[in-house]
Amino acid sequence: MKVVIAPDSFKESMSAMQAAEAVERGFRQVYGDAVETERIPMADGGEGTTRSMADALEGNMIKKEVTGPAGIPVQAEFALLGDGRTAVIEMAEASGIALVPKEDRNPVTATSFGTGQLIKAALDEGAVKIILGIGGSATNDGGAGMFQALGGRLLDASGHDLPAGGGALTELAGIDTSGLDPRLARTDIRTACDVTNPLTGENGASAVYGPQKGEDEKMVNLLDQALYRFGQVIEEQLGVHVDTLPGSGAAGGMGAGLKAFLQAELEPGIDIVLEETRFATRIKDADLIITGEGKMDYQTVFGKTPVGVAKAALQVKKVPVMAFCGQLGDGYEAVFNHGITTAFSLMPGPGTVESAMKNGEAYIESLARNTAALWKAGTMD
Amino acid sequence: MKVVIAPDSFKESMSAMQAAEAVERGFRQVYGDAVETERIPMADGGEGTTRSMADALEGNMIKKEVTGPAGIPVQAEFALLGDGRTAVIEMAEASGIALVPKEDRNPVTATSFGTGQLIKAALDEGAVKIILGIGGSATNDGGAGMFQALGGRLLDASGHDLPAGGGALTELAGIDTSGLDPRLARTDIRTACDVTNPLTGENGASAVYGPQKGEDEKMVNLLDQALYRFGQVIEEQLGVHVDTLPGSGAAGGMGAGLKAFLQAELEPGIDIVLEETRFATRIKDADLIITGEGKMDYQTVFGKTPVGVAKAALQVKKVPVMAFCGQLGDGYEAVFNHGITTAFSLMPGPGTVESAMKNGEAYIESLARNTAALWKAGTMD
Repeated sequence: MKVVIAPDSFKESMSAMQAAEAVERGFRQVYGDAVETERIPMADGGEGTTRSMADALEGNMIKKEVTGPAGIPVQAEFALLGDGRTAVIEMAEASGIALVPKEDRNPVTATSFGTGQLIKAALDEGAVKIILGIGGSATNDGGAGMFQALGGRLLDASGHDLPAGGGALTELAGIDTSGLDPRLARTDIRTACDVTNPLTGENGASAVYGPQKGEDEKMVNLLDQALYRFGQVIEEQLGVHVDTLPGSGAAGGMGAGLKAFLQAELEPGIDIVLEETRFATRIKDADLIITGEGKMDYQTVFGKTPVGVAKAALQVKKVPVMAFCGQLGDGYEAVFNHGITTAFSLMPGPGTVESAMKNGEAYIESLARNTAALWKAGTMD
Repeated sequence: MKVVIAPDSFKESMSAMQAAEAVERGFRQVYGDAVETERIPMADGGEGTTRSMADALEGNMIKKEVTGPAGIPVQAEFALLGDGRTAVIEMAEASGIALVPKEDRNPVTATSFGTGQLIKAALDEGAVKIILGIGGSATNDGGAGMFQALGGRLLDASGHDLPAGGGALTELAGIDTSGLDPRLARTDIRTACDVTNPLTGENGASAVYGPQKGEDEKMVNLLDQALYRFGQVIEEQLGVHVDTLPGSGAAGGMGAGLKAFLQAELEPGIDIVLEETRFATRIKDADLIITGEGKMDYQTVFGKTPVGVAKAALQVKKVPVMAFCGQLGDGYEAVFNHGITTAFSLMPGPGTVESAMKNGEAYIESLARNTAALWKAGTMD
């Protein structure tokens, strides 16, 4: 009997590894030593990806002070994995919306500079592969700040460097890549990107994601025009078409900047994590796979960890996939058409979100115990 | 594949049959017609016993106006089961504490008269066996009112009939059973009683259960003395010792009255229900048994339905027993030492008790679907 335990993190409640360890304890309550467990902390490129991959692949967390989205220094963390060659970076650590108090948010001037600094720090640590999660950004600058932090220059018609923020891109006239960190040319940058929005227009970065970053209609229009110009100049001077490219509108246009300046690949986050953790190989002899996430609902089928795990499992073998969640939300049943066999909430009864967060590990251990007991009763018959 | 579904009721949320039907639907989502289900609504003698037994055994509910505990008429229901010979009565229907507004409760005068009227009504319907649940009473009268309703007389030293309520028993001098309904002599009365309290003293009816019925210290003392006299007169005149008899203190001394006046048997409620529903016979070919109750906790092992079901199952065959509950409360894990294989809460996530009550059927169907899927995946391997 072998169980592979591959949950996502449960937001503020548990890291993916903490959840996996609790599930393992639950199974041991029933099986003792008669179960082989393999814990593979998962992530989909969103919050918790760095921690999960570090836990999965013997990584070390590295702290670095960088420029935050509002220009104020922030302490950011990234991971260097056990191979010494792969770094994992979350853009939200350096340029995330959670780093700026609501009243100070200004997407017109917010910069992705700190993310570029983290990439540079990863190169300094010897990384030749960078896995970059770009969710949760405060920025709408097309990755301009990142480019500048890595040695690129964005110039106005007078040849002056543009100031920070997406708004300044309305003045963009020239792109100078000559000072770009030369190590980038031999670095593989895998960007976790689950959205397919283009850079501009009604489905673009500004129109769709701007409002949640604090943009009013005027700002949305300004930034949409700025990114349009950004795309035009990129196409003219670098020969890369980004404006309508699916994913270029991710993270305030970061997708476009990554593509144009760093030749980064945009891929579904869960696919990157599954591949990097060698998931397919490690489940070959599994009898049961357990995954999970904080809230499972109709959105889970769009690239979230549980369904990614289930699809990957289906390609290897027919093995039941069980999901443990803080909440089974509206329409979660859609996951049953995407390879998930069954799903349970870890709540032991009525209770608040706060109590669920606080007791996550105890709850999930208990749930694991109870599913293990049912599984054992069925399979031992 | 045969599943026996034998839950208790879920208080105001679902009757036992409603819960069983919802569980059945959940299993059919996974198995379609490839599962045989047997629904056996359960009860432990407490609230919901009449309804469960009527649902389990083709009973009809019969309404009857009787005298409530405070002397005001109440509409009470009992069941005549499909055999036409067995009635099921809950004392709480006629003499329950929930029938009296808090400010009007007076255990000194509260009477079990209505319960006697319900027994009489059952006899009128042709019952020769009465299953009587005695939980939730407002009374502390030793079953005096019930006795009077059935034709018995309780007299003071001057030969006058005592007025209603336990307090009057301080004046008890004579018991006259000559007018007792003669049909009672050929009626089998099975009383569901899970407590072992004696009639009087520090573990007696008044001291232990009086305060929750609204008794202050003075009332407790008065009623304890009244019941003591009641027991003495019963012993002298009827030759039945009740004062220290385990269970005689149940339901405000109702246990004593039933024993002394009606030669009733006091038995654990769940045992009566299991026997009457022929549970042991009906699970002989079961592959899985599902039970449940509103809240499972450390008290569940003391005569509650899920553990009663599990113990009965253990005596027949080794079959997994799964419990579905609104809440897995403190110390519920004790059930695993009493035959329960596994237990799940039907909550799909954080939420209030009210939402759980309101959505009970949908939630338990969904949980049943998910356990069925896990069971099927394990057993089909």
